[in-house]
Amino acid sequence: MNAHFRYARRMDGMKASEIRELLKLVDRPEVISFAGGIPDPAMFPAEAARVAYAKALRRPNAALQYGISEGYGPLREWIAAQMLRDGVAATADNILITAGSQQGLDFLAKALISPGDAVLTQYPTYLGALQAFSAYEPSYDRLRLDGGNRTPASYLGRAAARGGAVKALYLVPDFANPTGLSLSLPEREAALGLARELDAVVIEDAAYRALRFSGEDLPSLQALDVAATGGLEASRVAYLGTFSKTVAPGMRVGWVCASRDLIARLTLINQASALHVSTINQIAMFDIAAGGLDPIIAVARANYRRKRDALLDALERYARDLAWTVPEGGLFSWATLPEGADAAALLQRSLAKVGVAFVPGAAFHPDGSGANTLRLSYSLPTTERIEEGIWRLAKVL
Amino acid sequence: MNAHFRYARRMDGMKASEIRELLKLVDRPEVISFAGGIPDPAMFPAEAARVAYAKALRRPNAALQYGISEGYGPLREWIAAQMLRDGVAATADNILITAGSQQGLDFLAKALISPGDAVLTQYPTYLGALQAFSAYEPSYDRLRLDGGNRTPASYLGRAAARGGAVKALYLVPDFANPTGLSLSLPEREAALGLARELDAVVIEDAAYRALRFSGEDLPSLQALDVAATGGLEASRVAYLGTFSKTVAPGMRVGWVCASRDLIARLTLINQASALHVSTINQIAMFDIAAGGLDPIIAVARANYRRKRDALLDALERYARDLAWTVPEGGLFSWATLPEGADAAALLQRSLAKVGVAFVPGAAFHPDGSGANTLRLSYSLPTTERIEEGIWRLAKVL
Repeated sequence: MNAHFRYARRMDGMKASEIRELLKLVDRPEVISFAGGIPDPAMFPAEAARVAYAKALRRPNAALQYGISEGYGPLREWIAAQMLRDGVAATADNILITAGSQQGLDFLAKALISPGDAVLTQYPTYLGALQAFSAYEPSYDRLRLDGGNRTPASYLGRAAARGGAVKALYLVPDFANPTGLSLSLPEREAALGLARELDAVVIEDAAYRALRFSGEDLPSLQALDVAATGGLEASRVAYLGTFSKTVAPGMRVGWVCASRDLIARLTLINQASALHVSTINQIAMFDIAAGGLDPIIAVARANYRRKRDALLDALERYARDLAWTVPEGGLFSWATLPEGADAAALLQRSLAKVGVAFVPGAAFHPDGSGANTLRLSYSLPTTERIEEGIWRLAKVL
Repeated sequence: MNAHFRYARRMDGMKASEIRELLKLVDRPEVISFAGGIPDPAMFPAEAARVAYAKALRRPNAALQYGISEGYGPLREWIAAQMLRDGVAATADNILITAGSQQGLDFLAKALISPGDAVLTQYPTYLGALQAFSAYEPSYDRLRLDGGNRTPASYLGRAAARGGAVKALYLVPDFANPTGLSLSLPEREAALGLARELDAVVIEDAAYRALRFSGEDLPSLQALDVAATGGLEASRVAYLGTFSKTVAPGMRVGWVCASRDLIARLTLINQASALHVSTINQIAMFDIAAGGLDPIIAVARANYRRKRDALLDALERYARDLAWTVPEGGLFSWATLPEGADAAALLQRSLAKVGVAFVPGAAFHPDGSGANTLRLSYSLPTTERIEEGIWRLAKVL
């Protein structure tokens, strides 16, 4: 059996095709979907996009031509300035533009992981990261930030037993997909301390970081590491940012911020893969961002906060047998059924009887555990549909 | 040494960074560049693009949202109809939209190649394909379509000696990058016959296929294989198409046409990498294509024909010591210096003394041979600059 069959089979074991089918249901009007992690299109800055594309096409020779693999210079400079606002002194040379943060995950895995190497992640974690990593055949080990019996030596020992080294820690510190939870400051420090002891790269997935709507801002892992090590060139954190949740995912523009050395390696990988992110999309995204991203994000935050509140109210009212997380930002809450219950079976029942979709939690666990958990995304339905969806769901619980 | 260092070092051996530096010279006005394989921006359908993006943004909820990994349905249907015009009965299920054909090369390599497996290619061949493949650590073997001493058993034996199997033949049958040459019908049949005996996939890179401006059309490898095997589902050819050379590379839209089984595997790979090609770019590209691609291509063909003629005339007039190819389409001619000459040293001299750029040929040879060869791209300079460039170059020959 060669690489692609092994790969396809593993992907299948992760139920990627099922998830994909679920996402398609979003368009069926009778279904209320808490499934896809899809931004609310009412938040897209449509008018700014119209202006930006029209403006980009006034210079068609640039907008429609090949670009360099690093990405469009002015956009990289704008992002570097944003990183500085967030506590990381970066320059354009520390930024690689990627087709969303998903492509950054793929490129980092390609740069870092040889078959058998270990990636440490919290369970559950983002399914798309597991898909990106799994193509390079790592083993997974469960990252425990509360210490317990997992010492650095135990992570190294387990990786060595599988014939590899610990190459990376993958974390979504803010309003994680799928749980909606954030790492506390001590947990952030613990993750960085462990990474230093393991001499591993920290992949910080900041996809939702801009979408905080309650609670207090916490420094990014990269900002903490830069403060501790004295600068980005000495930092072991690769920060993945994206415009998909703040502007629009259909433009496929995200970025990696890291040391120049790592960015140079990722740039070579980009050159051998898609060459570069669409030139016109980068120019248009720069125009939208430079025109002012803060007001656009403020509207999105207020919107998602209303929707989160609607979800939590409805759960409180109709679904008290569930346990759920209270996110301070982002798009997701995470619910737990009673021990022994099966969320995949619940989904079948829920779709057939009451027309409600969500993502069963097992898909987010590298070891296939979490059968009694599920992800509820509140980003897409209206507040009325959110309430009705939870009311309907409660009938099949 | 782990995967990314090995990878970076290999890339370096291929002089990818040098090539990149060369491409940057294109913008220096005093340099006449025959280096980059970059389409002439005067050919970009700027007005059609303006209309297409404005139209796409009348439905921002679709144009700016996530899409499915297979690609935008109407564009896949349009491409399937084009494939039918070219002798391959395909449906939308046989098409995956990729970020240019370069991303198709990356995804195919990821699906097919395990470390040590062999890829057969002609020497010289497209540098970007070698970069895409090399990330998956294949060995290369030189494909000889004239038979000679290379039997199927000899390819298999050499691959086995390196611990792998022959997984793929890579070919650019029409107006190849870098040589400008096309495979004859007997060579096409020979390649397919060999692939059948080796049970290997044929990767047909058709990036320049639409740009024939003289000579007779020849069937694609995929059309020949489909005719021989009875249908695309039984065909071993994966056809890579792109809009980069006919419409605009900055939109990053290309495709793979193959059996449904292979397309399904590549779709999973896409889902784990960039998720999908930019939605707005796919919708805009569909609009441009459906509005009529033939007139756009006709203008490009006439333009490149004029430029090729200017190059061949100038070579004939000023550079008779060189040997060069006579392309019937595409963007490139391939020149050979006297035995023992070094094109890399010539480039240094040429840039320093007369301000003329080209790509030394060794970069296109997996084994580093071809030191006395060079690629001349005539797509970008005007016919006047082409003549002057060759006149200048002749002074340092």
